[in-house]
Amino acid sequence: MAVNQPLFPKMNPVTGISLGTTNAGIKQTERDDLLVMQMVKGGSCAAVFTQNAFCAAPIHIAKSHLDKNPRWLVINSGNANAGTGQQGMDDGLKTCTEIARLVGGSCSQVLPFSTGVIGENLPIKKIITALPKAIESLTETHWQEAANAIMTTDTFAKGASKVIEIKGEKITITGISKGAGMIQPNMATMLGFIATDAKISQPLLQNCLSHAAEHSFNRITIDGDTSTNDACVVMASGCSKVAEITVESESYSIFSKAIEDICKTLAEAIVRDGEGATKFIRIHVEQALNQNEAMIVGKTIAHSPLVKTAFFASDPNWGRILAAIGRAEIKNLNVEKIEIYLDNICIVENGCRAESYTELAGQAVMNKEEITMIVKLGRGKVKEEILTCDFSYDYVKINAEYRT
Amino acid sequence: MAVNQPLFPKMNPVTGISLGTTNAGIKQTERDDLLVMQMVKGGSCAAVFTQNAFCAAPIHIAKSHLDKNPRWLVINSGNANAGTGQQGMDDGLKTCTEIARLVGGSCSQVLPFSTGVIGENLPIKKIITALPKAIESLTETHWQEAANAIMTTDTFAKGASKVIEIKGEKITITGISKGAGMIQPNMATMLGFIATDAKISQPLLQNCLSHAAEHSFNRITIDGDTSTNDACVVMASGCSKVAEITVESESYSIFSKAIEDICKTLAEAIVRDGEGATKFIRIHVEQALNQNEAMIVGKTIAHSPLVKTAFFASDPNWGRILAAIGRAEIKNLNVEKIEIYLDNICIVENGCRAESYTELAGQAVMNKEEITMIVKLGRGKVKEEILTCDFSYDYVKINAEYRT
Repeated sequence: MAVNQPLFPKMNPVTGISLGTTNAGIKQTERDDLLVMQMVKGGSCAAVFTQNAFCAAPIHIAKSHLDKNPRWLVINSGNANAGTGQQGMDDGLKTCTEIARLVGGSCSQVLPFSTGVIGENLPIKKIITALPKAIESLTETHWQEAANAIMTTDTFAKGASKVIEIKGEKITITGISKGAGMIQPNMATMLGFIATDAKISQPLLQNCLSHAAEHSFNRITIDGDTSTNDACVVMASGCSKVAEITVESESYSIFSKAIEDICKTLAEAIVRDGEGATKFIRIHVEQALNQNEAMIVGKTIAHSPLVKTAFFASDPNWGRILAAIGRAEIKNLNVEKIEIYLDNICIVENGCRAESYTELAGQAVMNKEEITMIVKLGRGKVKEEILTCDFSYDYVKINAEYRT
Repeated sequence: MAVNQPLFPKMNPVTGISLGTTNAGIKQTERDDLLVMQMVKGGSCAAVFTQNAFCAAPIHIAKSHLDKNPRWLVINSGNANAGTGQQGMDDGLKTCTEIARLVGGSCSQVLPFSTGVIGENLPIKKIITALPKAIESLTETHWQEAANAIMTTDTFAKGASKVIEIKGEKITITGISKGAGMIQPNMATMLGFIATDAKISQPLLQNCLSHAAEHSFNRITIDGDTSTNDACVVMASGCSKVAEITVESESYSIFSKAIEDICKTLAEAIVRDGEGATKFIRIHVEQALNQNEAMIVGKTIAHSPLVKTAFFASDPNWGRILAAIGRAEIKNLNVEKIEIYLDNICIVENGCRAESYTELAGQAVMNKEEITMIVKLGRGKVKEEILTCDFSYDYVKINAEYRT
């Protein structure tokens, strides 16, 4: 169902960060569903978390462990450990304690993450039993196995990797993500894990990640539902020969941009794998007064079930786009200044159908699998991009049958 | 597809207000698609309109005619005359002028309304040609024909009628509505037309209608999309023998309540006829700090595609309800105080699954066609009700095939 599924890229190993996976039998019997990531001593770790008020037990634990120099991540798919109360906290902590025991660290150095069905207790015995196997398999090359192990309704594994050069020395950044439904991340994606060998302090790494997440994961939406378990983590091992990245160093902007690129690639892959998606849609809102109104207009269009079903039907039903903009509660919106384009075809100008527009031309664009919609508000100079997908029979099917 | 479709009720004629319909061949070739309503001299007329910034040409015209003592309404289905620019305004005004010519009134006494596809010009010649026939057929008993003529994707005609008694004399209130998609009315429904023989000033009638619309049409949502053409009108002929209703009169609260009841019945019928609906869902948000947060929580749940598809699947997937509440951006929400019920079954308490809850009990409720969800926020005393429906394959089908 994915729209132009990207090939799984060559994943450059990151010195100092290794990955181990196994099958714990949580929901899957055949493919791996448990991932452990390990970083050498002396690195730094930053993370962003869901803003959903009902955040899951592992998110609570990961938040409280983030400033304890974490070196291990443990991620299970198949069960979100959300809405599980005190039992969920106990189960999450037990997982951390067991990893600490096995590797000789402390419980507070482990960040746990879970993804899957909400409201069921974690099968903690299965996880404890499986952990030694995951740890035994730790190597720096296990990226594809890791990407596979964190999938739920995803139809393909998502990865991105990049090597940047600074003064003749290299920094590697490699990451994975998962997510296909309950996707309107707010501060993070469903789950994203990025590793780099850069030497960088925790606060600066956190800055890079927060900025990157804001301009990547926070600009995508599949169904407008924000998960209880969203998180994105970046670990920096410090093993690269490039000198420490500081605010003053030239390398900072290069590194920060590279983290953003990785996040954008991972975020885009999530939209391409949107549940039931048949179209990949970029919504460019231009000429907005400020970022807020550009985002509101973009998201109102992206969430409109009528717009999404029109895309599914390849129907250039621009009246629905116009109606969505109109209900976005933008103050003093002058509809006569609005222009809407599908790719390079102007469909709306002066608030009504463009004179040059023909259904034939609109139809030709709508038949494509990838479409860029440009909305010019005629109010200012701010521009934002939101990525989304269409709404198909299969979205309903996938979500009507998810638990059964 | 409708959920417990109500029988079309006995529609009490309203003295002084008559209705005439005909087929103008706008989109339908067999059933009527044009309605004219006429009120005797000396009555009053109030209306509420869509808040969508892209409101349609007829809405602009109706707004500007509202204070000119309107006596005629003209409604066509099959074409919304929205996103049609100056041509749309000209076409709307031509319709008004032609009615005025035929009945001997003035153009500004006619309020036009249109519903149907957005972005196509009104087939004005067909409408002008058909108008005499509609006017010829004006009678006080044509309510069912009127309700039929304004339908688009509706699967049944919607009506409500009530006779109230004040000091031994009677007031009749009878109304019709339409709507099945693009429904999250903001100040009005898709289209609602109510007639009464009460004697009441325009400002007071407007008060009654605004209050009633706020507590009926503005509490329903099918897909979260607010139409460009929403409007609800009430005409009061003043033909009843009941003395004029004034703010001070005892009759005011009785009459106001009756208008609200009629609006609620019409609004509920719209939800039951939601596009593709298989379930009718009442969401009661209780113990909120204020009306605003109760409405936000209710609407976030009602718009969640994941909650809606779970209802379609009769799946008591309460994790999705909880995730929707959590993303509703309520400040300082203490999730541990939240309780959620499906009918009388407590599913969530203290922010996680209720101890007494069993999937069997949850499943039994979800299998029903009508379900009440109660969300107790544990913050205050305010209570609101939102009505909605589920999200099915047929919603996608109807909206993917609407124009083709």
